[in-house]
Amino acid sequence: MSADVIDNLTATLDALTKQLDGLQEVQRENYDAFYQCSMALIIFLMQCGFAFLEAGAVRSKNCTNILLKNLLESLIAGIGYWSVGWAIAYGPSYGWISPIFGGSQFFLYGMTDYAKFFFQYVFAATASTIISGAVAERVEFITFIVYSVVISSIIYPVLTHWGWSSDGWMKNGFQFDDISVGYIDFAGSGVVHLCGGSISILAAWMIGPRIGRYPKHGESGTGEIKGHSVPFAALGGFILMFGFLAFNGGSTGEISSPGVGQVAALAMVNTVLCGAWAALAYMFIHYLRSGKWTILLTINACLAGQVAACAGCNVMHSWAAAITGIGAGLSYLFFAWVCARLKIDDPLDAFGVHFGGGFWGLISVCFVGDKGILYGIFDHSIDMRQAGLQLVWQLICALAIILWSVGAAFIMFLIMKKLKVLRVSPEVEVKGLDIYKHGEAAYPLTAYGHGWDEIENVKDPTVREIALRKISQRVDLSLEELAPVVKKYSAYTNPKFYEHPEHFQNAEVKEEILKYKPDPTTNGDHTPRGAIRRINNSSVVPVNE
Amino acid sequence: MSADVIDNLTATLDALTKQLDGLQEVQRENYDAFYQCSMALIIFLMQCGFAFLEAGAVRSKNCTNILLKNLLESLIAGIGYWSVGWAIAYGPSYGWISPIFGGSQFFLYGMTDYAKFFFQYVFAATASTIISGAVAERVEFITFIVYSVVISSIIYPVLTHWGWSSDGWMKNGFQFDDISVGYIDFAGSGVVHLCGGSISILAAWMIGPRIGRYPKHGESGTGEIKGHSVPFAALGGFILMFGFLAFNGGSTGEISSPGVGQVAALAMVNTVLCGAWAALAYMFIHYLRSGKWTILLTINACLAGQVAACAGCNVMHSWAAAITGIGAGLSYLFFAWVCARLKIDDPLDAFGVHFGGGFWGLISVCFVGDKGILYGIFDHSIDMRQAGLQLVWQLICALAIILWSVGAAFIMFLIMKKLKVLRVSPEVEVKGLDIYKHGEAAYPLTAYGHGWDEIENVKDPTVREIALRKISQRVDLSLEELAPVVKKYSAYTNPKFYEHPEHFQNAEVKEEILKYKPDPTTNGDHTPRGAIRRINNSSVVPVNE
Amino acid sequence: MSADVIDNLTATLDALTKQLDGLQEVQRENYDAFYQCSMALIIFLMQCGFAFLEAGAVRSKNCTNILLKNLLESLIAGIGYWSVGWAIAYGPSYGWISPIFGGSQFFLYGMTDYAKFFFQYVFAATASTIISGAVAERVEFITFIVYSVVISSIIYPVLTHWGWSSDGWMKNGFQFDDISVGYIDFAGSGVVHLCGGSISILAAWMIGPRIGRYPKHGESGTGEIKGHSVPFAALGGFILMFGFLAFNGGSTGEISSPGVGQVAALAMVNTVLCGAWAALAYMFIHYLRSGKWTILLTINACLAGQVAACAGCNVMHSWAAAITGIGAGLSYLFFAWVCARLKIDDPLDAFGVHFGGGFWGLISVCFVGDKGILYGIFDHSIDMRQAGLQLVWQLICALAIILWSVGAAFIMFLIMKKLKVLRVSPEVEVKGLDIYKHGEAAYPLTAYGHGWDEIENVKDPTVREIALRKISQRVDLSLEELAPVVKKYSAYTNPKFYEHPEHFQNAEVKEEILKYKPDPTTNGDHTPRGAIRRINNSSVVPVNE
Repeated sequence: MSADVIDNLTATLDALTKQLDGLQEVQRENYDAFYQCSMALIIFLMQCGFAFLEAGAVRSKNCTNILLKNLLESLIAGIGYWSVGWAIAYGPSYGWISPIFGGSQFFLYGMTDYAKFFFQYVFAATASTIISGAVAERVEFITFIVYSVVISSIIYPVLTHWGWSSDGWMKNGFQFDDISVGYIDFAGSGVVHLCGGSISILAAWMIGPRIGRYPKHGESGTGEIKGHSVPFAALGGFILMFGFLAFNGGSTGEISSPGVGQVAALAMVNTVLCGAWAALAYMFIHYLRSGKWTILLTINACLAGQVAACAGCNVMHSWAAAITGIGAGLSYLFFAWVCARLKIDDPLDAFGVHFGGGFWGLISVCFVGDKGILYGIFDHSIDMRQAGLQLVWQLICALAIILWSVGAAFIMFLIMKKLKVLRVSPEVEVKGLDIYKHGEAAYPLTAYGHGWDEIENVKDPTVREIALRKISQRVDLSLEELAPVVKKYSAYTNPKFYEHPEHFQNAEVKEEILKYKPDPTTNGDHTPRGAIRRINNSSVVPVNE
Repeated sequence: MSADVIDNLTATLDALTKQLDGLQEVQRENYDAFYQCSMALIIFLMQCGFAFLEAGAVRSKNCTNILLKNLLESLIAGIGYWSVGWAIAYGPSYGWISPIFGGSQFFLYGMTDYAKFFFQYVFAATASTIISGAVAERVEFITFIVYSVVISSIIYPVLTHWGWSSDGWMKNGFQFDDISVGYIDFAGSGVVHLCGGSISILAAWMIGPRIGRYPKHGESGTGEIKGHSVPFAALGGFILMFGFLAFNGGSTGEISSPGVGQVAALAMVNTVLCGAWAALAYMFIHYLRSGKWTILLTINACLAGQVAACAGCNVMHSWAAAITGIGAGLSYLFFAWVCARLKIDDPLDAFGVHFGGGFWGLISVCFVGDKGILYGIFDHSIDMRQAGLQLVWQLICALAIILWSVGAAFIMFLIMKKLKVLRVSPEVEVKGLDIYKHGEAAYPLTAYGHGWDEIENVKDPTVREIALRKISQRVDLSLEELAPVVKKYSAYTNPKFYEHPEHFQNAEVKEEILKYKPDPTTNGDHTPRGAIRRINNSSVVPVNE
Repeated sequence: MSADVIDNLTATLDALTKQLDGLQEVQRENYDAFYQCSMALIIFLMQCGFAFLEAGAVRSKNCTNILLKNLLESLIAGIGYWSVGWAIAYGPSYGWISPIFGGSQFFLYGMTDYAKFFFQYVFAATASTIISGAVAERVEFITFIVYSVVISSIIYPVLTHWGWSSDGWMKNGFQFDDISVGYIDFAGSGVVHLCGGSISILAAWMIGPRIGRYPKHGESGTGEIKGHSVPFAALGGFILMFGFLAFNGGSTGEISSPGVGQVAALAMVNTVLCGAWAALAYMFIHYLRSGKWTILLTINACLAGQVAACAGCNVMHSWAAAITGIGAGLSYLFFAWVCARLKIDDPLDAFGVHFGGGFWGLISVCFVGDKGILYGIFDHSIDMRQAGLQLVWQLICALAIILWSVGAAFIMFLIMKKLKVLRVSPEVEVKGLDIYKHGEAAYPLTAYGHGWDEIENVKDPTVREIALRKISQRVDLSLEELAPVVKKYSAYTNPKFYEHPEHFQNAEVKEEILKYKPDPTTNGDHTPRGAIRRINNSSVVPVNE
C-alpha cells in the first residue's frame, strides 16, 4: 500500500516535472520571442524616424527622394538580410573561417529562430539607413540601391559576426595571463553606428558636397543649406528617441533569465539619461556660442548620446550615463566640426552623430562601465590591467570596424564612380530629384488652395475690420455709416449664401453693392467680395476655382 | 513515521501542484492578455497610418475632412463593436443561427475576455476605415457616420463570425471522404481586406468620380488629381507597415502555447518579406514603364503584399513569401488598372490594395502554404485532393465574403442615395469640404508668416550678396565702395537692432541711408531694409506685421 | 530501500520547488519589468503626441519653439526625476514626514527597480508637458526650463507620494467606524492631470493672453488665433490616444498577479470607450451649435474623456465608461468656456482637457466605479456611507492637489515675473519666437521651391490645356492650327530636353518659337516655356534657379 502511495507520488511528481519543464520552455521560447518581436517592431519604426529626420533636413525639392530611400531600406534590407546577411552574421561555419564569416543558413535554410532573425534584421536596416543622410540631395538612385544591398547583406553582417556571434574574433578577444578580454558592445555603438558613421563620411567625401554648400571664391551659393521642415525633423527625432529605447533595451535578446528584466530596464533608463545629458550639454554650449536655442542640433546631440549609450547601457550606473552622455555631446560637436573643416558635406551630421557617438560609447564603457578604469582608480581591489586591456581591445576593434567598413565601402563606391552613377547631374541636383527622378513632387502645386478663402479670412475679425476700413476709405463712408452694410456683409460671409446664386440677383443686395463708388482696380467687381478679394491679393494659395 | 514523511511529501506535492497550476494559469491568462493588448495597441495606431496615407493623397482643401473621418472610425467602431459588433461576431448563439450569427453578449453583457475584445475591436476599426479612402473628397459626412456604424457593427462582425468563430460555417467547412477542409485566413486577407476592398469599389462606383477625375469630352479637368503631401502619405505608409507586423503577428491571439512564439515571429518576418517583394517588384515594373521611381505606388504595393500575407503568414516558409509578395504586387497592379478602366475613382487605390492583395492572399496560401498545391507537385506523399478542395473552399468563401459585403453595403448606400446624402454638392466639392463642413482649414492662411523674414534671408549669404549687388547697381557704387555699408548693414540684420527703434533715429544711420539714390519702386523706404524687402517681393509668406 | 525512494522523492521535490520558485520569480520580476517597460516606451512617445498637438495649434512662427519645449520636457524630466523626483515620490522616509514626502534614493542611490523608475519617469514627463500648451507662443524659454525642472522634480513627485506611495496620506485616507476610505486614482486623473490642468490655468493667467487674443476696445486683433496645421494637431491627437491606452493599461504596474491581465485589458477598453463617448458627445453638441464638424475640439474632447478614464478605468464596467466619457465631454466644454469667459488665454485648452477631464474622473469613479453611489441606489446591500465618504475624500484630495499645485507654481511664476523673464517682449511675440530665439524657422523660405515647376504643371492636362488656349489666343491661332506645335511642345515638357541645352539652338525649334507674335509681357522669352511661366506667375513657390 505504501508502495502504491509512493508510485502515485512518483507519477504525480513525474507529471509535475514535465508540466514544469514545459512551462519553463514556454517561458524561455515564447516570452523571449514575444520580447524580441515587440522590441523589433519598435526598432522597425525607427526607419520612419530616420526618414523624417532626413526629410526635414533636405529641401522640399528632394523630399520624396529621401523618403523613398528610407522606405526602401527596410524592404531591401529585408530581402538582403534574409538571403545572405543572416548567413554571414549568424550562420554556423567551421574552421579558420568561423571567426570571420558565418557560412550557412542562406535564405534562412535550416534557421529556426525567427524572433532572433527579426530582431537582427531590424538592426541591419538601421545600420544601412544611416548613410542616406550623408549623401542626401545628390546621390543617384541606383547607387543607393546598390549600397543598401551591400551594406545590409555583407558589410554590416560581417561586423556583427565579429562582434556578436559566439565565433566572432572580436567577441572572443584574447587571453593574457589570467585576464580574458572580449569586445564590449551591448547594442552596437561600434558594430552598428561606428560602421554607419564611417561609411557616411567616406560616401559624403567621395560624392562631394552639394552645389552651393562650400562655394569657391567667385561662385554663387550659400555656406548653409537649410532643410525644409523643422517639424518633420522633430518628428523623426521623437520617433528615433522612442526607437532607441527598444534598440538598447531589446539588446538583452531575451527576457527569461533571472535578473534580465532589470537589465533591460536599466538599459532603457541609461539610454534616456545619456540622451538627455548629451542634448542639454550641447544645447547650452550652443546657446553660449550663438545666443540661440537650437532644436535641430539638440536632437542630433540627443541621438549621439543614445548612440554612445549602446555600448554599455547594461553595465553602467546612472551617474555613468551622465559622463557618457555629456561626452557624447562633446564628441558630436567635435566630429561634426572636423567634418565641416574638411569641407565634407554631410547634411544630416551622420558622421558626427553615429561616428562621434559610437566611438565615444566604445571608449566610455571602459572607463565608466562596471569595474571600468574609473572604478579602478577608487577601488584598488579592481584589476586595472583588465580595465586597461579592455580599453586597448576596444580601440583595436574600433579600428577594425572602421577599416573594414571604409575599405569595403570604398571599393563599392569607387566602382559606382567609375560607372558614373555615383551622383546625379548638376541640373537635376539644382532643380531637385523629386520630379525628375520620381515624378512626384512632395507638395504638388495643383493640390493646394481652396475656394472658401475669402470666407475664411472674412470670418477672421482682423481681416474683416481691415476690409471694412479699406471699403470705407474707398467709398468715403465712415465705419459708422457702413454699419448697416456690415450686417448684410455677414450674410455674404455665410457659405450657404453662395450656394444659392440667385441671392446675387436680389435687388436689395444689388443696390447695396451699387452704393460703392467704382474702383479702377476692381475689374468691375464692386461687391464687398470683390473688395475683399483685392485686399487678399497677397494671398499665397492659388484658388482652385 | 514513514507515513508522516509520505503525508508531508503529499502535502508538499499538493501545494506545489497548486502553485504550478496557478503559475500556468497566470501564464495563459495574463501573458496572453499582455500579448494581445500590446499588439492591439499597435494595431490601434494603424488608424493614424490610414489617416495620414489618405490625408497625403487628398488635396489640401479636404485634408481636415479625411483626418476627422479616420479619427472617428476608431471611436465609432469602439462604440459599435462594443454594443453590437462583438455579440454578432463572438457572442454564443444556438441552433441553425449559430453558423451565421452570434447572438449574445450585446454591450459586452456576460463577456469576460477583455483582451480578446480589445484585439478584435481594433480589427473592426481597420476593416471599416479602408472605405474612407475610396470615397475621399466627396462623401457626405453623415453617410460616412452611417457606413462606419454599419460596417463595424454588422457587416464586418458577420464575416468574422463566419470565418473565425468556432461556430462559423466557413471556418468549419466541410467533410469530403476522409478530407476535412476549413477556411484558412490567419489574419484576415479575406475577412478584413477583401471585405473592405469590395465595399470600397462599390462605394466609389455608387458615389461617382470626383469632379475632374474622368472629364468627359469638352469638360475641363485633368485626368489626374494629385494629393497634397507626399510626406504625409509616407508617414501613413510607415505607420501602416509597422502596424501590419502587429496585425499579422498578433493574430496568433495568444503567446503561451508551446511553439506559438516562433509562429508569431514567422508571421512578422513573412509580413516584412511579402511587403518587400511586392514593393520592389512593383517599383521596378513601374520604373521600366515610366522611367520614374514612384514612392506613392510603392507604398501601396507594399501594403498589398502585407495584406496578402495575412491569410497564410503563419504557415509559409520564407521563400513562399516571395511568391505571395510578388503576386500581390502584380495583383495590385491589375486590380488598380481594372478600377481605372472602369472609370471608377478610388483615390487611395483601396480596391487594388485591399481587394487585390486580399484575394491573392486567400488563393496564394493554397499554393505555397504548408502542404499546399506547390508542395504536392514535388512531394507525392501529399494528398492533392486536400489541397485542391482547399482551393475550392477558399474561392467559395471569397465569393461569399464579396457577396455579403457588397450586398449589405449596396442596400445601405442605396438608402443614402435616395435620401440624397451620399455626396456633397458640386460647389462644396470644388471649393473643398474643410471650411464649409468643418470650419477648419487644414492650413489657415492667418497662421502663417513671421516678421523676421528679411533677417532670415539676409543671414543667408546668397541673398545678402544678391541684395548688395542690387543695391550697388541702384546707387552706382561698386561692391568695394559699399564695403563700409556692409558692416553697418550687418548691424541692421541683427534682430536686437530692431528691438530698439531709437536706432533708426540715429543720425549716422540716417545719413548712410540718405546716400542712396531714391528709387521710384521703394515707396520712400530707402534703407537697405527697404531694398531687401523689394528683393524679397517674391516672398510667399505674408508678413504678420 | 523505501527510504531511498523517499529520499529521492524528497530531493526531486526540493529541486522542483526551487525550479518552480525560480520560475515564479522570473515571472514576477522579468515579465513585470517587460510589461512596465513596454508600456513606458509607448507613454514616452506621448511626448511626441503633445509636441505635435501643440505645434499644430500654434502659428508657424512659433512652431520650432513649441517643438523644442516638448522635446526638452522628456530630457529635463529625465534628469530631474532621476536626481530628485523619484526620491520625493517613492524614496522611503520615516516619521511624521513620511505621509508627505519621500526622502531617500536621491540620484537613484540604493534604488533597484529600474522598470518602476522608468514607468514613473514617463508619467512625470507627461505631467510637466501639459503646461507648455497653456503658455504657448509667449513664454520665455528660461521660464520654461525652470518650470519643467520644478514640476517634474518637486511639484508632481510630491503629489504621487501623497496619492500613490504606500506612505502617502491621501492613499491611506482615514478610518471611520468600520469604513476605511483611501484615495482612488488608478492612473492619475488627479495626480497627473488635475495637477497639470491647475498649473496650466495659473500660468496662462499670470503670463497674460497673447497679443490679439482678447483685444480691448480700439485695439486691432482678432478674438481667435488659429493654429497653423490641422494635420499636425491630428497627428498629436492620434499619438496621444495611442499613448493613453498604455498610460491607463500600464497603471496596473505589473502583469503577474492572478487576474491582472484582464484588469489591464479592461482599463484599455474603458479608455477607448471613455474617449469615444466624450468625443462623439462633444462633436454632436458642437455641430448642433455651429453647424460644423470640428476635428480640433473633438480631439480635445476625446483626450478629456481619456483623462477622466484614468481614475477608475480598472473598476468600471463598460456602461460606466459611457457616463464617464459623456460627462468628460461636457466637463471639457464647461471648463474651456469658463477659461474663455475669464479672458484667460489657454491656446491648447489644457485647462479644459486636463482639469476638466481629471476633476470629473475623480468624481465620476465614486458614482459609477464598482460599488459606487449608482450601484448603491439599486443594490441596497451596498453601504452608501462608504460610497459617500469616498466622494468626500476624493473632493478633499482634489482640493489638496489643486492647492498644492497652484500654490507651489504661483511662487515659482511670481519669482520669474519679478525677474522679468516670464514673457518675451511684444516685438518678439508679434514677429515670432522661432527665428529670434532659436535661429531656426520651422519652414525656411530658402528651402522651398524647385526648378521643374513648369514641367510639373505642364504635365497636368488642365494646365497644359489652359496654356495652349492662352498661347492660341496670343498668336491668333486656333487650337487645331496649333496641333503640330503641341507635339513639339511635349518635347519641351520632357525633362531630358533641358539636360541638353544644345536643343535650344536647334534651328527648327527656333523657327517654331519665332512663329509666335511678340508679346510685351514676355520680356523677350517667346517660347512656350516663357508663356507657361507667365501663366504660372501666380506660382507660390520661388524657383531655386
